[in-house]
Amino acid sequence: MRIAVMGTGMVGRAVAGRLAELGHEVMVGTRDAAATMASTEPDRMGNPPFSVWVRDHPAVKLGSFAEAAEHGAVVVNATNGNVSVAALEAAGAVNLAGKVLLDISNPLDFSQGGTLFVKDTDSLGEQIQRAFPDARVVKSLNTMNSALMLNPGRLAGGDHSVFVCGDDADAKATVTELLRQAGWRDILDLGDLAAARGVEMLMPAWLRIWQALGGSGHTMFNWKVIR
Amino acid sequence: MRIAVMGTGMVGRAVAGRLAELGHEVMVGTRDAAATMASTEPDRMGNPPFSVWVRDHPAVKLGSFAEAAEHGAVVVNATNGNVSVAALEAAGAVNLAGKVLLDISNPLDFSQGGTLFVKDTDSLGEQIQRAFPDARVVKSLNTMNSALMLNPGRLAGGDHSVFVCGDDADAKATVTELLRQAGWRDILDLGDLAAARGVEMLMPAWLRIWQALGGSGHTMFNWKVIR
Repeated sequence: MRIAVMGTGMVGRAVAGRLAELGHEVMVGTRDAAATMASTEPDRMGNPPFSVWVRDHPAVKLGSFAEAAEHGAVVVNATNGNVSVAALEAAGAVNLAGKVLLDISNPLDFSQGGTLFVKDTDSLGEQIQRAFPDARVVKSLNTMNSALMLNPGRLAGGDHSVFVCGDDADAKATVTELLRQAGWRDILDLGDLAAARGVEMLMPAWLRIWQALGGSGHTMFNWKVIR
Repeated sequence: MRIAVMGTGMVGRAVAGRLAELGHEVMVGTRDAAATMASTEPDRMGNPPFSVWVRDHPAVKLGSFAEAAEHGAVVVNATNGNVSVAALEAAGAVNLAGKVLLDISNPLDFSQGGTLFVKDTDSLGEQIQRAFPDARVVKSLNTMNSALMLNPGRLAGGDHSVFVCGDDADAKATVTELLRQAGWRDILDLGDLAAARGVEMLMPAWLRIWQALGGSGHTMFNWKVIR
């Protein structure tokens, strides 16, 4: 499948690399592809420059947000939540119309101690849906470490849970099929996109659990819904 | 141990009944004990009147909020979140001073569709701590069905998780010991009471999962932190 991954950070790379490994035609979208490739410095998070990462992932293409969105039948929003709407505006509503828009971002404001800039009565997933009414937004994968998102088998043999929600049943089915291909077995459909409020609000507890379990880049855990 | 349970609803009964079964001296606190015992009608949630329930739990005493708080070395707040501070004011700061105050309530406003009346930058647990600075507040057990709170073995042999947080290490140790006595094995200490923000914000997702899994009084599930 032709898939666009918006965002060149740790999350975008984890998702893009794994989707390519699974056989998809992946284009990563960025604001300025030439600038992204020209950068030789680690980013603010200490990730090596994209140009280094992409050498090990030669099947992954890079383009502008618009080029990537045009390429993808599925568009994955892996940008930071605080710039997601702007990045998707750069991608262009016309390139998102009718597409499955898999939103894996979180409305975290780390300049305010990891609080949420939207919550409870609204969500980032819904904000994106309202900004791009012709896209078919599905919220998923935002509740875990990026290393697990499409590699659930890296933890406990994949015996943990992922949530999906959205207003378009066909779009949820497409995402669910991608999740199954990646190894997910426990996929909970929480209903319409308003459920994004709940799954985005898992993040503050997630950050506390992450701290309690070590708080390093190697701290690996996830939610499982026992029933 | 002498334990007070504030609240005569479903949550208070589940906790009080089980604590008595575990051998504790339990007094349930209510606004007006005579009125509570005189009521012959089911409550708004359809629970039978307290006077019927207490016949099957003869070891559980009933008193005013103040009498119960005076009785308890540990005071459990099992009132609805929207009346918790008022109930504890009725109990009296003097009767809470120095006590372990185990807050199991949630700041849910069901008149507003189950949204949260405090969140993200503050929590009900912290509001209670600020209102009663001499109490030693521990937040726990608010993240699950009341039937599981002190009976984790009712689900998956007890193989799921409970969170504790609070500013007083000794108070957390007392609560942790009670949890272990009740059958909990996976008790995660999330640090200081500010972690109550995170665990209270689990509720909107919890309510969606509850709906997805059936949404009845028999729908039993819980979080487990897989790591």
